[in-house]
Formats: sequence, structure tokens, C-alpha cells
Amino acid sequence: MNPIQIFGIPKLAELTAGDDLPRLLLDGISRIGIQLQERDILVVTSKAISKVEGRVIDIRGIIPSRFAREIAPLIQKDPRVTELILAESKRIVRMVRGLVITETRHGFICANAGLDQSNIAKNLAVLLPLDPDKSARRIRESIRKKTGVNLAVVVSDTFGRPWREGQTDIAIGVAGLAPLLDYRGKKDRFDNELRVTVIAVADEITSAAELVMGKTKNIPAALIRGIDYASSNAGAHKLVRSPRRDLFR
Amino acid sequence: MNPIQIFGIPKLAELTAGDDLPRLLLDGISRIGIQLQERDILVVTSKAISKVEGRVIDIRGIIPSRFAREIAPLIQKDPRVTELILAESKRIVRMVRGLVITETRHGFICANAGLDQSNIAKNLAVLLPLDPDKSARRIRESIRKKTGVNLAVVVSDTFGRPWREGQTDIAIGVAGLAPLLDYRGKKDRFDNELRVTVIAVADEITSAAELVMGKTKNIPAALIRGIDYASSNAGAHKLVRSPRRDLFR
Repeated sequence: MNPIQIFGIPKLAELTAGDDLPRLLLDGISRIGIQLQERDILVVTSKAISKVEGRVIDIRGIIPSRFAREIAPLIQKDPRVTELILAESKRIVRMVRGLVITETRHGFICANAGLDQSNIAKNLAVLLPLDPDKSARRIRESIRKKTGVNLAVVVSDTFGRPWREGQTDIAIGVAGLAPLLDYRGKKDRFDNELRVTVIAVADEITSAAELVMGKTKNIPAALIRGIDYASSNAGAHKLVRSPRRDLFR
Repeated sequence: MNPIQIFGIPKLAELTAGDDLPRLLLDGISRIGIQLQERDILVVTSKAISKVEGRVIDIRGIIPSRFAREIAPLIQKDPRVTELILAESKRIVRMVRGLVITETRHGFICANAGLDQSNIAKNLAVLLPLDPDKSARRIRESIRKKTGVNLAVVVSDTFGRPWREGQTDIAIGVAGLAPLLDYRGKKDRFDNELRVTVIAVADEITSAAELVMGKTKNIPAALIRGIDYASSNAGAHKLVRSPRRDLFR
């Protein structure tokens, strides 16, 4: 059995709105001497996508609402940044000193609505892509056109989670692979139903990719080879648990 | 930069109490033609460890308490299995039709206190290892003695999580690597504080390993090569968020 391999794809230049990200990623892939193969998986950080999609805001142009000004001291953020977080959110899930966790318009639950002010010039804030599944599909399609190779694309972001220390990378956009691997109804060799029913493969893939990307290494993408995934048109929104099924809302 | 590589280690025989698991894992590693290297990471499923540590119970010998008999119909489990789950737990976190989530004696929050009745003969249930950090240290030490190689060992289990569909593998035991990578106080190249503060590297490692292990492939361990981790004696209990810091208890 061949091992799974994970290659870090270096960023060759600062990304800005309108850049041809698939082209830049392909350049990065050739730079490390890799030949794309069918069924490779390309993991791209949401930040790289947001930058080329123009989801970068100069906070100096934001006028905070009264509510944003009221809660800004509690969450210990600039009122203009607070305004942006609220605008990106459907609801506030938890708000305590120095921290706000919201449900984004996509349905993701994370700190600061995913807004990010690191690895970008001062006064700028990066928002999550508007539709990360669509971003993933667009990259996949563009690479297919440029190279003839069918790969899967996963958009990653770094989220915290309840009960455990530390953050991990999870999938917020997926194209070309089934984000969930369903074992329901399958039997083991002792004829027992399996305890584990559904594996969030896409989240395991982004976590694996984070191990080569890190946060200070200027590696916005990873190429993963050797995973036997199921092809699918389902997106990462399948990973968002519906309120009806969620015990922890 | 070399890629990260993940090799599945096949199980060569059924595991039973008292087996020399490190020896069997080394046999599995030679079977796939790999030579152990310094700083490799060995990920082992908790189930393999529980089996050799005798954490397997015949449920026919269990006498359920009155409380276990009362809640068994709600969580839709055998009253004897319910009794076992309660005995493994510090408290019940959520209990709804067909599902019980508890905090284990170790502090992990998961379904059924981690109890597992799959991939084992009927009437048997596998409990989590009593002290998975100790199990990890023991395997690491034994392999060092047998081979002279220093590797890190991570014990994995498959847990669900709030808000997202699907389960992922997380680290319940760690020896030889720092489970958390701390970026606090570090600056990016624009002199911003990093948004991401602490990465749960050990959980990303187990998620990566799950991608080669699967649930029906008889692969209880994985060897990961090429991760630049920090050596540490801290265990996986560092990944358990203290109640004081947890917004979602």
C-alpha cells in the first residue's frame, strides 16, 4: 500500500484581488517539482481565496453601529472590527470578555465570524469567502481546464472547538470529494454494526494539510496524494449540523 | 521540502490481553518494508491498546444498577452496557433518545464514555485505556528499548463534536511530542499578532492517521514521517480544556 503524501505548496507572491489563484498554485506546485495526478487533493486556505476574491476590508472605512460600539469593550475589539464581525454573522453564540463566537452567514460556528487580521497589512481585515463551496468548485474547474487533471479541492480554515484546547483546520469548502464517509449499516467481521457511523473525511484532510502549512511559513496550500476518496458534488455545507440534530446550540 | 508521509500498519493477528503490542507493531512495520527513523510518529488506536491492556469486558457478567435500567430504554442500549458507560463516566453531559454523551473519568467528552462494541466478538465491549498517556509512554519506551529509535507515540480515538456532522480522530494519549503548538506572542511579517494562538497538533496528527486506517481495513496504527514537531513530556491531558476555560459545558 502506498503511503499518503502531503506536500506544502509555497506562495510565490503576495495575493491580491483578481489574481489567478489556480495559476499561482500550479506555479507553486511546479516549483516544488511535483507533477499533478488524477485524484490528487488540493487544500487551499480560505485566506488565500478571500484575498483573490476581494474579501479584504479596510477597517478605516467602517462606521460602527451603536450595538457594535456597545459590545466592543466587552469583546475587546475595535468597534469597527466588531461591526464587521456582526455583519458577517447570523447570531451571537457566546460572548465573554475578549471573545465572541458567532454563527456565520454560512452556518459555521467560530470565533469572530472567521474574520482575520493576521498575515495582512495593518488596518485590513480578511473575511471568509462568500461561498467557499463555489470557490472550491471554481478552482477545481480552472485546474481541470488548464491541465486536464481532475483533482478534488478543499478550502480550509482554522477553528476552535468546545471541550478541547487548541484549534484545528476544518473544511469550509469542498469540490470533487465526498466530505463525509458513511459507514451506517456496514458490519464488521464479527457481524456487529460499527460504532462509528460517519467520518468527516474533509475535516481530517484539512487537519492533515495544516501540518505542512503552519501559520508563519507562507504556505497557503497543500497537495495530498494517496487518499482513496469517493467523488461527489456535495459541498462542505454537508458538514454543518442542522439545528434540529445539534445538542449543543 | 520533503512531504509528510503516512503509512498504514496492518494488524497481523487478533490482539488479546498481555500481547506485546510494540513488538506486533514493529512486525507490522517491517511487513510493509519500512525502516523506523528517529522522530517518526506512531499513531495507535485506543482499541488496540485496550485489547492488550485487558480493557475488554464480557457484558454478560454485568449487573445493571437501578439507574442504568431506568435510562437504558431512553438511550436505547442494553442495561448492562448502560451500566458500563455510567461506571466509566464522571457525569452525563447530554442524554437524548438513542444517545448519551458523558465526561469520562479522564475528562474526555464523548458518546458512550468511549465504550466500543464494534470489531470485537459479540457480548464483549472495549473500554478506553485507563491512562492513555501512560500507554503511549510505555509503547514509546518499549520501542526505544527494542530498536534504539526515539519516536513519538499518539493514541487515537474517534469522537464526534458539536455543530459539525461526522466524527474525526483525536488524541487521547501522547508521548514524546508537544500536543499543542503555541503561537501566542508571535508576530507575522506585517507585525500583527497572529489570530491563531494555539494549534492542537496531536489532534491533527490523529486525524491524518485516520485517513489510512479507516474503520474496516484492519489497520490499527499508522506511521507518520516528516512532521517537524517539538519534543515534550506533556501528555494528551493538556488537550482537555479546563471547566474554567470552557464556554460549552
